[in-house]
Amino acid sequence: MSSHGRSESSVGGPVGRSVGRTVETIAQERENCPFDVRKLSIIQHGSEKDLLLKEKFMLELARDPIFYLGDIHDLTKDQLRERTFEKIGSLVYHVTNESIETFQKRMEIIGLCDPGFWTRFGVHYGLFLGAIRSGATPNQMSYWMEKGVISCQGMFGCFGMTELAHGSNVAGLETTATFDEQSDEFIIHTPHIGATKWWIGGAAQTATHCAVFAQLMIKGKKHGTKTFIVPLRDVKTLALLPGINIGDIGKKMGRDGIDNGYIQFTNVRVPRAYMLMKHSQVSREGQVTEPPLQQLTYGALLSGRTAMVADAANTAKKALTVSVRYAAVRRQFKSSPGAEMETQIIDYPIHQRRLMPLVAQATAFGFTALEMQRLFEETSSALESLEPGDPNLNEVIDKLKTTHATSAGLKAFCTWACLQTIDTSRQACGGHGYSSYNGFASMYSDFAVHCTWEGDNTILALQSGRFLIQAYQEVLKGTTQAGGTAYLNNIETVLKQKCKGKEHLISLQGIDEGWATVAAHAIKKAANDYEGCLKKGQSREQAFEVCSQVRFVAAAVHTSGFVFRQFRAAVERVEAGPERDTLELLCKFYGLWQMEEKAGFFLRSGWLDGELMDYVQEKVSEYCAATRKFAVPLVDSFCISDHILNSPIGCADGDIYNRYFRMVRRNNPQLAEHKYADKILQFIHRSPAEMEDVGEGIDLDAELEEMAEERAEAEKEAKEAKEEEEKAKK
Amino acid sequence: MSSHGRSESSVGGPVGRSVGRTVETIAQERENCPFDVRKLSIIQHGSEKDLLLKEKFMLELARDPIFYLGDIHDLTKDQLRERTFEKIGSLVYHVTNESIETFQKRMEIIGLCDPGFWTRFGVHYGLFLGAIRSGATPNQMSYWMEKGVISCQGMFGCFGMTELAHGSNVAGLETTATFDEQSDEFIIHTPHIGATKWWIGGAAQTATHCAVFAQLMIKGKKHGTKTFIVPLRDVKTLALLPGINIGDIGKKMGRDGIDNGYIQFTNVRVPRAYMLMKHSQVSREGQVTEPPLQQLTYGALLSGRTAMVADAANTAKKALTVSVRYAAVRRQFKSSPGAEMETQIIDYPIHQRRLMPLVAQATAFGFTALEMQRLFEETSSALESLEPGDPNLNEVIDKLKTTHATSAGLKAFCTWACLQTIDTSRQACGGHGYSSYNGFASMYSDFAVHCTWEGDNTILALQSGRFLIQAYQEVLKGTTQAGGTAYLNNIETVLKQKCKGKEHLISLQGIDEGWATVAAHAIKKAANDYEGCLKKGQSREQAFEVCSQVRFVAAAVHTSGFVFRQFRAAVERVEAGPERDTLELLCKFYGLWQMEEKAGFFLRSGWLDGELMDYVQEKVSEYCAATRKFAVPLVDSFCISDHILNSPIGCADGDIYNRYFRMVRRNNPQLAEHKYADKILQFIHRSPAEMEDVGEGIDLDAELEEMAEERAEAEKEAKEAKEEEEKAKK
Repeated sequence: MSSHGRSESSVGGPVGRSVGRTVETIAQERENCPFDVRKLSIIQHGSEKDLLLKEKFMLELARDPIFYLGDIHDLTKDQLRERTFEKIGSLVYHVTNESIETFQKRMEIIGLCDPGFWTRFGVHYGLFLGAIRSGATPNQMSYWMEKGVISCQGMFGCFGMTELAHGSNVAGLETTATFDEQSDEFIIHTPHIGATKWWIGGAAQTATHCAVFAQLMIKGKKHGTKTFIVPLRDVKTLALLPGINIGDIGKKMGRDGIDNGYIQFTNVRVPRAYMLMKHSQVSREGQVTEPPLQQLTYGALLSGRTAMVADAANTAKKALTVSVRYAAVRRQFKSSPGAEMETQIIDYPIHQRRLMPLVAQATAFGFTALEMQRLFEETSSALESLEPGDPNLNEVIDKLKTTHATSAGLKAFCTWACLQTIDTSRQACGGHGYSSYNGFASMYSDFAVHCTWEGDNTILALQSGRFLIQAYQEVLKGTTQAGGTAYLNNIETVLKQKCKGKEHLISLQGIDEGWATVAAHAIKKAANDYEGCLKKGQSREQAFEVCSQVRFVAAAVHTSGFVFRQFRAAVERVEAGPERDTLELLCKFYGLWQMEEKAGFFLRSGWLDGELMDYVQEKVSEYCAATRKFAVPLVDSFCISDHILNSPIGCADGDIYNRYFRMVRRNNPQLAEHKYADKILQFIHRSPAEMEDVGEGIDLDAELEEMAEERAEAEKEAKEAKEEEEKAKK
Repeated sequence: MSSHGRSESSVGGPVGRSVGRTVETIAQERENCPFDVRKLSIIQHGSEKDLLLKEKFMLELARDPIFYLGDIHDLTKDQLRERTFEKIGSLVYHVTNESIETFQKRMEIIGLCDPGFWTRFGVHYGLFLGAIRSGATPNQMSYWMEKGVISCQGMFGCFGMTELAHGSNVAGLETTATFDEQSDEFIIHTPHIGATKWWIGGAAQTATHCAVFAQLMIKGKKHGTKTFIVPLRDVKTLALLPGINIGDIGKKMGRDGIDNGYIQFTNVRVPRAYMLMKHSQVSREGQVTEPPLQQLTYGALLSGRTAMVADAANTAKKALTVSVRYAAVRRQFKSSPGAEMETQIIDYPIHQRRLMPLVAQATAFGFTALEMQRLFEETSSALESLEPGDPNLNEVIDKLKTTHATSAGLKAFCTWACLQTIDTSRQACGGHGYSSYNGFASMYSDFAVHCTWEGDNTILALQSGRFLIQAYQEVLKGTTQAGGTAYLNNIETVLKQKCKGKEHLISLQGIDEGWATVAAHAIKKAANDYEGCLKKGQSREQAFEVCSQVRFVAAAVHTSGFVFRQFRAAVERVEAGPERDTLELLCKFYGLWQMEEKAGFFLRSGWLDGELMDYVQEKVSEYCAATRKFAVPLVDSFCISDHILNSPIGCADGDIYNRYFRMVRRNNPQLAEHKYADKILQFIHRSPAEMEDVGEGIDLDAELEEMAEERAEAEKEAKEAKEEEEKAKK
């Protein structure tokens, strides 16, 4: 049966030539693929087991009616929230029965089709439970487990960190937790509107308890921000407890499936034991003990950032799967008057330029995310196995710092690049990209928050830049760098390196050296500017502020090189064969395209000259054309099911117009009541004279002149009043 | 009364220090302003009259209950559409009583606060009426005027151009209009699903008539795309007429206030006279007369693009008004431990880097939009005054081509830059930028379509690039260029120019020369590559395709230079004084920042060397700091009222937290019914054993192994089946 059989008879005729062959067209795109799609897919997913796991989860989701996505774009905020809650129930079973790694993979997939739900679930399991896990003493942990925190039985948590006037500056939070020695309780209080807990996911409707970050106050003295578990609602009725005022934050740019709320506490009392006391302790007498190593609490931030790097890779691949498949089957304009069909838009060099480099980048991000996950696991287990007085302490702290800086830079630059990829993909699908039913609108608005939460991207990029300056300084002092900054060793040689010609320029080794050299120059510039500020007598903090732009640039260049290096390492682990060849091509493509994007730095550092830069541009165009040839099987190897894509113009079988048409029609029944037809009729049948004659006599110029005079008069009065006031002051 | 008086007593205490001084802080930002805000505002708006007109319109809108915007983010698509329709009535009076220029200004302001409405209104008045105006004979014009097209009495129009399978390629549209000589009628027909009219604004619910673009077919022969007025609905009942099938396109990324629909025609008959016949005619006998000059129909596209350049400038200014004011009053982190208050985020150099260049750019776009409007008016009136056999014909056509190419490049690059500005502004407002109530979410999603409609930006950029190549070729042939490409005259000298040192580098003249030189190099490269393709035997169309990336680059570089030049010209028209100094600073800032952004081209062309490029970066940072000093009064001079901003964190008086809190609370009443409380209670009180024990016995590894085997089996079968099939074929 040909694709024609799929058309809807109701549309009044056979499917036209321009449309009907989309299925055949995409099938042809899969012919003569130079690599084995399955093999390439396994490589990208880390292992066959991981790929199978993903497929199992995708299949389960596609079959689960509660994860039906066809109607998602027409649900109201309140409907979305209710549905989110219904999904929670279907997952609690898995969270308590699966290994952490398996469940994380499951969540990674769910996050890709329902980011709002992912957030609500993550607020309890990642943030609330995470806060208890990392902050509670063993006794406290048992207490909350008995209360039901693991299986959400008897409680459901949220995470009360940000306030209306404080986000990034956690140490500056203004909610207070005052110790009342007499009753052995803390009094949680919101002193003013700016200290209102704001954006708290789950607070508006669903949470019973909150992990509240508040300033510990004892006998009038501040002891910094600590975490307190505060019951919000009666678990039998969901009624707010005394002193708790909660409201709904309402409509957001995206992720409306999560009920963000605000919370104001008016002298709410909790037992002393509700402060999480693994790190800092408050005794019965109000004595505070602080932890020896503040840095060790950093670890908590890593897991979110690691997940976001993976999400950036996955979401970019999702967007590109749609835009590449659409580009393959969409035809527009005939290349020659005699052509039988119009040209596939993917065959236009400029369209390749729009999408192909992003395909290479998304592939690079995929491998980078695997490496980030590995780093995270390595660091976490090193942290967990740390004993008091451990001789490895310094080593572990170094590792933690490195992983922290790496995750900061990657989170920032990968989420930015992904956001750009989504919008470029949308634009590449023309008008149909603007329809909600093709998924880009929600993909963008849901993803956008990644650039802001868990560390604003700009601030994280600067943290990465600060780390790079310090690494450079250490190298100058003779300390060897390991990991992502190892290229700074032998710094003098690295800085002097130059590209040895065209062949070197486009070899994996040459590209690698190029990024090392250019990043080293950018870091050196940042470090020198910083030193210069110190010499002028500025404090370290001042100097870092003044050098923020160069720090930012250093982090950007370093991160592109880092991503390239992860990709290269992954390529070199693959056995020789067409899959490795394909990945090597994409790896070079990514490295050179990023060179073109950051051309100024490459020319400035002298790594290459103008002519070689022209050659880079030429090669990038060449790689665009080469990648186009296997673009459809390549995005197939990303392995994202039609259900997860939820985008008819990106469907695997290429039957885009019929599917899109059906989706639009299903969600907008044609016989629905017309709710304002009477208003339209009234309007077009109003009497001809109505309104039109009141306009006579209006003199616009006179009106404006009067306005100008009134204005001048008012200004004069204001000025006089101010002068009076100042006179009175004297 | 201090700002404290404004706080809500209900929040449980006085306003905190971090929050309470926002009003004082923004007031301080307006002290010691180096320029007269009013004067600067007048300069940017073109004249005092234009500014007063804008203020009059903003005041009217703010007072008109139908233009209340406080609840707009919580309305459903259907509610938005109904409200859009109610607004129509309030504007028809003005459209029939005001001069076209005055009304256009009114629409420009309305478009800034309600882009969805602007679109619905524009579909009738701009597109539908515009199609009739430009395409109807005088007799036809009178006919439709009698039917009520001007005042929307008895009819309300929509514009049926795009189809499901055709957007950019208008000549390839597949709806047919077959002439039936016997009845003297056209038969309008949708032959297949791909020819369904798609995205038609107003079609879903509100339009009675449609200007349909269809292939004229006479006696089996195609005569190209023409326009036909087709009645869609019974004007007495709004019931669909026979043969018309209309559906709703449903949810879109933005602009849900307009009811986009799809239309399928099944042999719908209209009188011959319903084809618009000013340009092409069909006689009673089916003879077709084509217009002598196809180019003259280009003119219709200009007005939309001109309006979009203005909208890009205005919307960028709107986004920046919010983000700059927020940056001025938002405080985060203390710069020194002893500081009384935390630091205004606008004082961080990196935050200045995020916003200040965009402020300079938006100012540049504002002046560019004024120039574009002037060009448009000049060209339109030249076109309108053209008589048959006019001796000025070639000159007018040249002007039309130039204006067309200029509008194409500006539409593309200004709308892209504006979209970026909106999102950067959102991110600069941190979490609060993600709340719908602060306006960035809808600003982005409403604006995004500008990059796609009325000419996809990439395609328009390429048109501009094609024009530049042609201009370059003409210069080589000795023809002098006027207007935006005049810098190409004396091309040899221009190409050889080099920056004469730091002073030259940062002078208006020097920056101007720099852009001319670098643009000339980019255009030369594009032209040479193009010539190279022709020499290889490629057709002109092929050659242009192959050179699309270099064409794109040429257009991008040229457009930045063009915008700079408009800004410079505007600056030089201002009389000496602080306003001119401020604008000159911003003009240099824009020119140098764009140099930094496109550094690769400046280094590659040899206009400057690495050291001078470092100086550019240094100056850009310096200008960031300089602009920060008057950033608040500068955005005040953009003159966008709080009502239009509709963003509490961007309000003029700086009382951001109280206003934001009130807005959130007003739109999310705290005592509203909790619609799924029972589900939450059921969930957290389910019996402990429920579900948890079904997991026993699951062996994940075994399950995955089985999946892998099944998969391998299925692949094997598919392969065998394919081999069978191929054998059978032989």
